[in-house]
Amino acid sequence: MCKILNLGLLAVLTAVAFPAVADARDAEDAIEYRQSVYKAIKWHMDPMAAMVKGDIEYDAISLTRHAQNVHALSGMLLEGFVPGSDMGAHAGTTGARSEIWERWGEFEEKMSTLNEQSQALVIASTSGDLRGNIRPAFAELGQACKSCHDEFRERR
Amino acid sequence: MCKILNLGLLAVLTAVAFPAVADARDAEDAIEYRQSVYKAIKWHMDPMAAMVKGDIEYDAISLTRHAQNVHALSGMLLEGFVPGSDMGAHAGTTGARSEIWERWGEFEEKMSTLNEQSQALVIASTSGDLRGNIRPAFAELGQACKSCHDEFRERR
Repeated sequence: MCKILNLGLLAVLTAVAFPAVADARDAEDAIEYRQSVYKAIKWHMDPMAAMVKGDIEYDAISLTRHAQNVHALSGMLLEGFVPGSDMGAHAGTTGARSEIWERWGEFEEKMSTLNEQSQALVIASTSGDLRGNIRPAFAELGQACKSCHDEFRERR
Repeated sequence: MCKILNLGLLAVLTAVAFPAVADARDAEDAIEYRQSVYKAIKWHMDPMAAMVKGDIEYDAISLTRHAQNVHALSGMLLEGFVPGSDMGAHAGTTGARSEIWERWGEFEEKMSTLNEQSQALVIASTSGDLRGNIRPAFAELGQACKSCHDEFRERR
């Protein structure tokens, strides 16, 4: 990963050539970026789902940490949806429907809901009440995922 | 991504079957997870490098946001290095040397340095002083990346 980072460091220190990064990021990079963020979200969602379901033991610290990470990651998604990175232009790579950009305000709102529900799960997680607080907050968060996928993601 | 999330939600709501997540995460999932986090870090490092170098215009808010994201992501890396996910067991997939697990304390320390240096960059970024504060803090952060890669990552 840090080949470019190292180049960046060298550039800072010795002013060697460093590839310019345009303001508008490359669509393929953006797709890879947002898919990476989604994968990281999944990594943190899975053990929370398992705890809520009772498949693995509830660990309060671990659950809060996972919820915090999902919250941080959720705030990183939107910038990955650069114009021109829809499934029409990049079939086989992404399932992002063109409706995202046609109804950007609605998409942005769903992302805000994800951000808010993940924050709500962080708060709920600090109660230590798995059944009364955490489970419903986790269900709301899952609903925020589903609501956006149903509308804007093509099933592949 | 949220196929499993949706199943998780269903599991919460209707108690249908949901695959158990073991405490010890699967090595291949862990490799994919940590590589995703590294990719997301790179996405946020690139524009900061370009600003520091002067290839794109310095944008204070954007730089702080990228630094905050790198900081948040840096704290997510360590858990992706589960035992048995080294390049010996997973050649072609990862360049993580077995030395990571043989000298875990040293590796953990380098991850802490990354976390601290990214935090330092967040703080430096709020000064708005690109040349005097941000550039040196960015160089230190790049050095933290490089130091770990030199020691623990196989060049591929």
